[in-house]
Amino acid sequence: MKKTTLQITNLIITPIAVGDPPLLNAAGLHAPYALRIIIELETNAGITGISEIPGSERIRQALEKAKPLILGQHPFEMNLIKQVLKAHFGEDAADQRGNKPWDQRQLIHIFSALEVASLDVMGKLLNEPVVNLLGGKARDRVPFAAYLFYKYEGAGGALGFGVDPMAKGWEAGRQKEALSPEQIVDQAMSMCASFGFKSIKLKGGALEPALECESILALRRAFGAEMPLRLDPNAIWSLETAVKYGKQMEGVLEYYEDPVRGQAQMSQLAKLVDIPLATNMCTTSFGDLPESIRLKSEQIILSDHHFWGGLRASMELNRICQTFGRGFSMHSNSHLGISMAAMVHLGAAIPQFDYALDTHYPWQLDEVIKGGKLPIVEGSVEVPSGPGLGVEIDQAQLQRLHKNYQACGLTERDDQTAMQAKQPGWKFQLQRW
Amino acid sequence: MKKTTLQITNLIITPIAVGDPPLLNAAGLHAPYALRIIIELETNAGITGISEIPGSERIRQALEKAKPLILGQHPFEMNLIKQVLKAHFGEDAADQRGNKPWDQRQLIHIFSALEVASLDVMGKLLNEPVVNLLGGKARDRVPFAAYLFYKYEGAGGALGFGVDPMAKGWEAGRQKEALSPEQIVDQAMSMCASFGFKSIKLKGGALEPALECESILALRRAFGAEMPLRLDPNAIWSLETAVKYGKQMEGVLEYYEDPVRGQAQMSQLAKLVDIPLATNMCTTSFGDLPESIRLKSEQIILSDHHFWGGLRASMELNRICQTFGRGFSMHSNSHLGISMAAMVHLGAAIPQFDYALDTHYPWQLDEVIKGGKLPIVEGSVEVPSGPGLGVEIDQAQLQRLHKNYQACGLTERDDQTAMQAKQPGWKFQLQRW
Repeated sequence: MKKTTLQITNLIITPIAVGDPPLLNAAGLHAPYALRIIIELETNAGITGISEIPGSERIRQALEKAKPLILGQHPFEMNLIKQVLKAHFGEDAADQRGNKPWDQRQLIHIFSALEVASLDVMGKLLNEPVVNLLGGKARDRVPFAAYLFYKYEGAGGALGFGVDPMAKGWEAGRQKEALSPEQIVDQAMSMCASFGFKSIKLKGGALEPALECESILALRRAFGAEMPLRLDPNAIWSLETAVKYGKQMEGVLEYYEDPVRGQAQMSQLAKLVDIPLATNMCTTSFGDLPESIRLKSEQIILSDHHFWGGLRASMELNRICQTFGRGFSMHSNSHLGISMAAMVHLGAAIPQFDYALDTHYPWQLDEVIKGGKLPIVEGSVEVPSGPGLGVEIDQAQLQRLHKNYQACGLTERDDQTAMQAKQPGWKFQLQRW
Repeated sequence: MKKTTLQITNLIITPIAVGDPPLLNAAGLHAPYALRIIIELETNAGITGISEIPGSERIRQALEKAKPLILGQHPFEMNLIKQVLKAHFGEDAADQRGNKPWDQRQLIHIFSALEVASLDVMGKLLNEPVVNLLGGKARDRVPFAAYLFYKYEGAGGALGFGVDPMAKGWEAGRQKEALSPEQIVDQAMSMCASFGFKSIKLKGGALEPALECESILALRRAFGAEMPLRLDPNAIWSLETAVKYGKQMEGVLEYYEDPVRGQAQMSQLAKLVDIPLATNMCTTSFGDLPESIRLKSEQIILSDHHFWGGLRASMELNRICQTFGRGFSMHSNSHLGISMAAMVHLGAAIPQFDYALDTHYPWQLDEVIKGGKLPIVEGSVEVPSGPGLGVEIDQAQLQRLHKNYQACGLTERDDQTAMQAKQPGWKFQLQRW
């Protein structure tokens, strides 16, 4: 059978801004909009693959520069595409993660975006879900954790720190202030009532460690021992602080995520506190793994297909975790339904599922996929059964969110500046407590 | 778009016997026939996927028992198929490798066979080569090494230890006796003239270590320092012997493959001899890797998709090797063109290619694919560009080779019995020298 070689004919790169509430974290405060980039990879087969990655003007520009290198390539020849990108951006661009809680590597962002879109094309051509390109489902539904944040009152988006008095249910719950243990328990109750989560993660590193520890203990009292709890201080605690409060959370935390910075401190902490340590900040690339394994610095690796090189690379990471007796779960940033779908296909395909995955999804009311947000039921998301990722872009929403991007004035995620609007002179610190 | 769910509708399991010359190795002597099993996985899409695995009556029976479990399954749901096989065969069946130089694990043989056939189906449905399901080509041609054997005179197959006086070129060369260093050099010259190999491996563990070492030194004199050389004593040497002859081959061998048995001895040897150590006997599964990494027992892992769980698992192994700074290459058994095609797709997809791959392919004159053997040109095989594996079964040849199987009387690979016909009373030993 003679055939036309499949080719990438266009790459549409659309930066969007998504309403995001004023969530606190070690780097400061979420601005009223979270930035994402939506990719549409068009082919000469009339099939378009889609993907979503963290947004910034820097990444958008890098994608625009990558575009002419990508056009005309075969969308399944990802090895070749990676070689072309490396030749253009330089090998080093793969490993510049930075000190922020979010990842700043250009090359791997771009490659990940293209790989997911490539698998979406492949699935659509085959009329099979992406999970079936990764070895098929090991489970039908993928569990996620409630992701709690300390926050100021406010809805985000056009409302900024304002509140929509008409909001109901979780939409109202997500606007409430949460600065005390009691308010965090209220947030958890509201989120779990709406989505049925069966695990809870609290983003820490934002308030005094004693208050964050007390919040975990309050959650334990409120939800009982059956509800797994996690705390993530985003590497902003000293070893001494992490030991002091870790001791109080032994037997309470399911895992303790990046309380301190760097594998060396994590390794020391692992010997001093009897709680499994998890990371998406100390071990964030394949190159970091040998030392993590050697030092036994972390028991659980929090993958993120946007930052580890796509879905196949994440499957490879999962195999490494299985092989070396490490747990595997997933990190998240503010995201919409295309990233969620990719996470769910991956989460369904991994043979060994250790911990409910992180997701910011309930915090974003906006959506870019047709039919609105993928439902979270009993804390889990069903694997989309349609071809490819099983989700499609709602072009009207995409244009609306793109207009948000043009209007909002944000070009990079900058939680420090957002925080300074609340606390003048506030500065990010590598170690605060 | 509504569609019929893809299903496996039939699994045709055909044991075949392939003419094989009297090759010597640590376990004895190759019988006149090597046993393989050819799988045809039929689907309701009218597409049939194929694969080839090492043969034995035990594996054939296990496949027949697996067949009713597989029928009706979705051919891309390999996670589910693995779960079904594990439930039937037991988890333990995955890890019984045995002491022989070849692998005896049932479950992983069967899973590997199904996985390759599954990818062949996927490629054919997509009209894309299997390499494009693994991330695409990192190279167009995959290099193999000349695989030298000590051997008795003889062609194998119906001729047994007899010789076909009409044979020409390599077909004549492969029938010649090779029991001395000079005859090994002749064999290498003949094989390299015919196939253009640019690396040479000598199967050792068959004759006195001094003679095997002298053969390597003779090859070095004949081919010069530009020709990488490897020796594989199949773990039958003592540590003392491996050190003594290793010292004589420092600066000569590209790598030293399984000279001793077990990771502990390999780790000791690695400290005593300055040659990279390779293995397909001491580290043969994902479960073996943590100790291999910890002990630094081997520098190069010789994968084999038949024994590591298929092509995706081999990609995962390749990632582990890259991540932990280990070399990656491939082990081989006597095989035909379907296994060769699978090895070539995998060899083209791995991002980092360290060493020319092993192959017994020139030793088998028989072939089961249409158009005869895949050409080895300048030591490399071009990646088949057709859909799936890019090779098709020649049904007339399949039936001829199946009749060989029925007639030859062999049901298991048994090199000891074959050897006893030449040397009465010969016994396999775990450590001979």
